[in-house]
Amino acid sequence: MLVAERIEQVRAWRGHVEGSVGFVPTMGYLHVGHLELVRRARRENDAVVVSIFVNPLQFGPHEDFARYPRDLQRDLRLLQGERVNLVFAPEIAEIYPPGFTTQVDVGPIGERLEGASRPGHFRGVATVVTKLFMIVQPHRAYFGWKDAQQVVVIRKLVADLAIPVEIVAVPTVREPDGLACSSRNVYLSPEERRVAPALYAALARARALWQEGERDAERLRQAVRARLADEPLLRVDYVSVADAATMEELVVVDRPAILSLAAWLGTTRLIDSELLGVE
Amino acid sequence: MLVAERIEQVRAWRGHVEGSVGFVPTMGYLHVGHLELVRRARRENDAVVVSIFVNPLQFGPHEDFARYPRDLQRDLRLLQGERVNLVFAPEIAEIYPPGFTTQVDVGPIGERLEGASRPGHFRGVATVVTKLFMIVQPHRAYFGWKDAQQVVVIRKLVADLAIPVEIVAVPTVREPDGLACSSRNVYLSPEERRVAPALYAALARARALWQEGERDAERLRQAVRARLADEPLLRVDYVSVADAATMEELVVVDRPAILSLAAWLGTTRLIDSELLGVE
Repeated sequence: MLVAERIEQVRAWRGHVEGSVGFVPTMGYLHVGHLELVRRARRENDAVVVSIFVNPLQFGPHEDFARYPRDLQRDLRLLQGERVNLVFAPEIAEIYPPGFTTQVDVGPIGERLEGASRPGHFRGVATVVTKLFMIVQPHRAYFGWKDAQQVVVIRKLVADLAIPVEIVAVPTVREPDGLACSSRNVYLSPEERRVAPALYAALARARALWQEGERDAERLRQAVRARLADEPLLRVDYVSVADAATMEELVVVDRPAILSLAAWLGTTRLIDSELLGVE
Repeated sequence: MLVAERIEQVRAWRGHVEGSVGFVPTMGYLHVGHLELVRRARRENDAVVVSIFVNPLQFGPHEDFARYPRDLQRDLRLLQGERVNLVFAPEIAEIYPPGFTTQVDVGPIGERLEGASRPGHFRGVATVVTKLFMIVQPHRAYFGWKDAQQVVVIRKLVADLAIPVEIVAVPTVREPDGLACSSRNVYLSPEERRVAPALYAALARARALWQEGERDAERLRQAVRARLADEPLLRVDYVSVADAATMEELVVVDRPAILSLAAWLGTTRLIDSELLGVE
């Protein structure tokens, strides 16, 4: 497994690869959700690249960029076990050298929900993903459905700019109690950790209603909110039932939709989602 | 020579090309300046692609998008004579289908000079160039120095996003009287056409001063303005002596610089430029 810190190293490696390249962009501090992406990439491609880069551009000024968990040695050990060919772990200045100014913006689809709570977040995501795609030049790239809006935004980015990369979205991996795997789960106190599965429980309740035929989007949102209201430690940011293509809120769930939420547990902001009729 | 209107046709062709691909993006209505780019691409690559697309995104609402000259049949005849392999001439909806929203923005470097006179112009240029690069996937792309700020912006775009394309800038081709070749020259009345060489004459005068050792940027600008003032039909938009890396106006020409101007002749806006110490 080659570990590259420089763009030029990745380009040199890439120039000699035969066959297909699968790419898993991450912010590191890997968990089984990431490993699921890596395994899927391993099965579907001749070579696998994982990037580890905590992207400052996608964090707001008062967000958790500084305290975001990092442990490169642990990440490398985990990836070694997955037969990854190349790990790209650049310093910030390698991706954003002094004078860097270019931004990629997907427009309104990135200004809703996570984009409304985190202004500029998806511009940061779109910019770094575009640059990583240009560096790695993969055939396929793998993202988790937990960050559902991110999947939709990146598919829009790739479609709009005709970037020649297939986006593969992989189902969310969960802890046995339902909590979606996330690097941010380490922020939770034991008490918060006990409450956290309520997020998925709330989504699962609304999804069950949808499966029973409920198509009123507001009733589904209310079902989520009602379950979350049982947990006094939880502070809801948003609950959404949105068109899976545009991320616009729905009145009637008459098309593929994404049920999603964001909530605070103390100083930790968690998100989760469920797909409603998305293939 | 294959003529493709669809992105898929270009991708299919591209998948079978051996060796290097040179790309000349144009807005059509080709002149000898374009043909010079094509010949350079032909010499330096195994295959040559030319795109013909009048990009609505880079025109302001009151600009000449509707009346911009178009003659695809004439363009194809000219390119046939240059041994071009593929011409990509898409409809607007092929590049910007309904719902297209993604924009690429290079920041302040694209907000000066042409960007100040034409807000959004370079965002439109950066967006379409990125998309065309993703479709054609060339090794090298060719641009004329006449649009000097465009060259600088595209080099910044490619550097910032690590787009794997080499940008080759080619010297401006001029009419015998010095007027830079431009598709917009057809707009000129016979009287305006007689005045138009003053643009280059003014630049050449300032460049001569620079070659004699003048390093005061304002004196160079004044030399340009003084020559243009001789022509009552000309209305100056800007005269600039700017850092060739950042397009910021200089006080002292102590580094590679771009001397450029924009001026109106009746309803036609022309630009021209000269390089001061740019390799």
